[in-house]
Amino acid sequence: MDDVQGLWASCFVPISDYPRVLLAHGGGGRLMHQLIERLFVPAFGGQPEELHDGAVLEVGGARLAMTTDSFVVSPLFYPGGDIGSLAVYGTVNDLAMCGARPLYLSAGFVIEEGLEMATLEAVVQSMSRAAAAAGVRVVTGDTKVVDRGKGDGLYINTAGVGLVRPGVSISPQQLRAGDVVLLSGDVGRHGMAVLAKREGLAFESEIESDGAPLAAPVLALLDAGVRVHCLRDCTRGGVATALCELADSARLEIEIVEASVPVREDVQGACEILGFDPLYVANEGRFVACVATADEQRALDILRSCEVSAGAQRIGQVTAHASGIVTLRSRIGARRVVDMLSGEQLPRIC
Amino acid sequence: MDDVQGLWASCFVPISDYPRVLLAHGGGGRLMHQLIERLFVPAFGGQPEELHDGAVLEVGGARLAMTTDSFVVSPLFYPGGDIGSLAVYGTVNDLAMCGARPLYLSAGFVIEEGLEMATLEAVVQSMSRAAAAAGVRVVTGDTKVVDRGKGDGLYINTAGVGLVRPGVSISPQQLRAGDVVLLSGDVGRHGMAVLAKREGLAFESEIESDGAPLAAPVLALLDAGVRVHCLRDCTRGGVATALCELADSARLEIEIVEASVPVREDVQGACEILGFDPLYVANEGRFVACVATADEQRALDILRSCEVSAGAQRIGQVTAHASGIVTLRSRIGARRVVDMLSGEQLPRIC
Repeated sequence: MDDVQGLWASCFVPISDYPRVLLAHGGGGRLMHQLIERLFVPAFGGQPEELHDGAVLEVGGARLAMTTDSFVVSPLFYPGGDIGSLAVYGTVNDLAMCGARPLYLSAGFVIEEGLEMATLEAVVQSMSRAAAAAGVRVVTGDTKVVDRGKGDGLYINTAGVGLVRPGVSISPQQLRAGDVVLLSGDVGRHGMAVLAKREGLAFESEIESDGAPLAAPVLALLDAGVRVHCLRDCTRGGVATALCELADSARLEIEIVEASVPVREDVQGACEILGFDPLYVANEGRFVACVATADEQRALDILRSCEVSAGAQRIGQVTAHASGIVTLRSRIGARRVVDMLSGEQLPRIC
Repeated sequence: MDDVQGLWASCFVPISDYPRVLLAHGGGGRLMHQLIERLFVPAFGGQPEELHDGAVLEVGGARLAMTTDSFVVSPLFYPGGDIGSLAVYGTVNDLAMCGARPLYLSAGFVIEEGLEMATLEAVVQSMSRAAAAAGVRVVTGDTKVVDRGKGDGLYINTAGVGLVRPGVSISPQQLRAGDVVLLSGDVGRHGMAVLAKREGLAFESEIESDGAPLAAPVLALLDAGVRVHCLRDCTRGGVATALCELADSARLEIEIVEASVPVREDVQGACEILGFDPLYVANEGRFVACVATADEQRALDILRSCEVSAGAQRIGQVTAHASGIVTLRSRIGARRVVDMLSGEQLPRIC
């Protein structure tokens, strides 16, 4: 009997190390990945290595990308954006990270009873402008209202579909030793903008979210024939978590150079005051592109010619080590392992 | 100046007659339609007459249906179903109502901090079984966690895509005078099952939700070449609201016969005790099909051969009147107008 129990104990992997859901389970870090790998992937029949920003599917002869995100940002409005623009760009960008041209969005609203109609209208108008900026159409939607005290004003889900051209194959499994890692611009603005607004913090200058649609630079890279092996937007968990996910999925090591990661002075200052590492702070208009070594300069030129990725930089390289980790050379020359975000850094920033 | 103000007053249509969102704005009735027509349709560039359970789109040469629904049902588990199966069937059925073969779903979870992990697991397992029953795959997802007191355990959004065959065109605009209106089975079970569980009501027999996937009977009709002009599932607002939407969109009158609408005795009894009209109570496994007169018997035979629509009945007919209303011949022979649900009958039943 003891033996049977011992066998069970060794076979049984609990879906989480926690009996209840914590805020950190939605934080984009280790606990969320645990939930995905132990609960969602087995239930829905996927393969852990398929985990990516969206799914690429064959439908009626077309190669379709499909993705979804729910948005629960608090507050609803913050410098540089609001839940409406965020809900459009977040999903459009996940499609772009599959190498797809974003085409259509759905929008599902969960509204708390008592929300001011003018607030809802402002958010919907913002979604409308963001959809126009991103070149997509919101084609279907749904509205649910929950009782007062069972929501927080407004939550929005968007799902999106886009078209992937034949021959385009972007995933962590495409990463190759020697690939250069490019970052599309400075990091940390979205998370700090939301936090500052939520907590009523005033810094020397107002930090604006970087929220923006990212399909244009991605499609420009693909149009030019740059060998793009993998893309990832640096949202929850920041650029550090995005790279950890890629290294782990690809089972290759990624080396980055801290000094090459662009961080604006005001963001750096705010992070220092509050004890955040900008590498882990969420962005909504930044992505990493891993491209073939020989295409580095051409890729950088193309990215820098697009407004949204004008500040693109090479920040590191994929190495031949099969460690699946990310290492960072610090400003003082030391090398350390970059860990995936564990716990919750900034809840409800997207 | 008075003239200008008068002009403004006559031009300005407020997005709602209410300054704040009410529960009824999510109830599937008149207020929700007002919100859709005055806010969402203008903002997202659609046409009011396009309003349907989903959008049909051309993507890469394929005819795709796309739809979304958020699910906020309370309680999470009820006789005959739970939020997980509901989230799968709800979206699969909206695709079926476009005449599409449902293929892929996305799933977005908004979890309240503190939800028991075992509850989340049970819901996800239920989604997995429902997806298998409906022949679809959940291919992409998202998890967000909100602070305690800012949710109600769990909300789920699903979006779906399906494939529409060439030549299939199902919409209210296809309705023709003379079309017969078929209903796939008895009505009122889902709403009463959820309400009874929520309020702890015990009736003589336990009423189970009718939640079920509806693509099989729809595709069987299309496969057989039945001229299906329009389909609508009878969810929020019940069969009455579904028919009102069709009549209004088509600008044709629909006449139904009360005695021909199947209602189980226990549901009828519960409705009488609680003062509900079963025509307005939500279903999750029932739909109306408007088909060409000559195809009536064939359509009924096909529907009755599918388990989920074994109780199909003809309940009425589309007339040549351009009134855009629904009329009902009652059991005592009187005719009355069937109005769209106004206000909120049963909040949070889906």
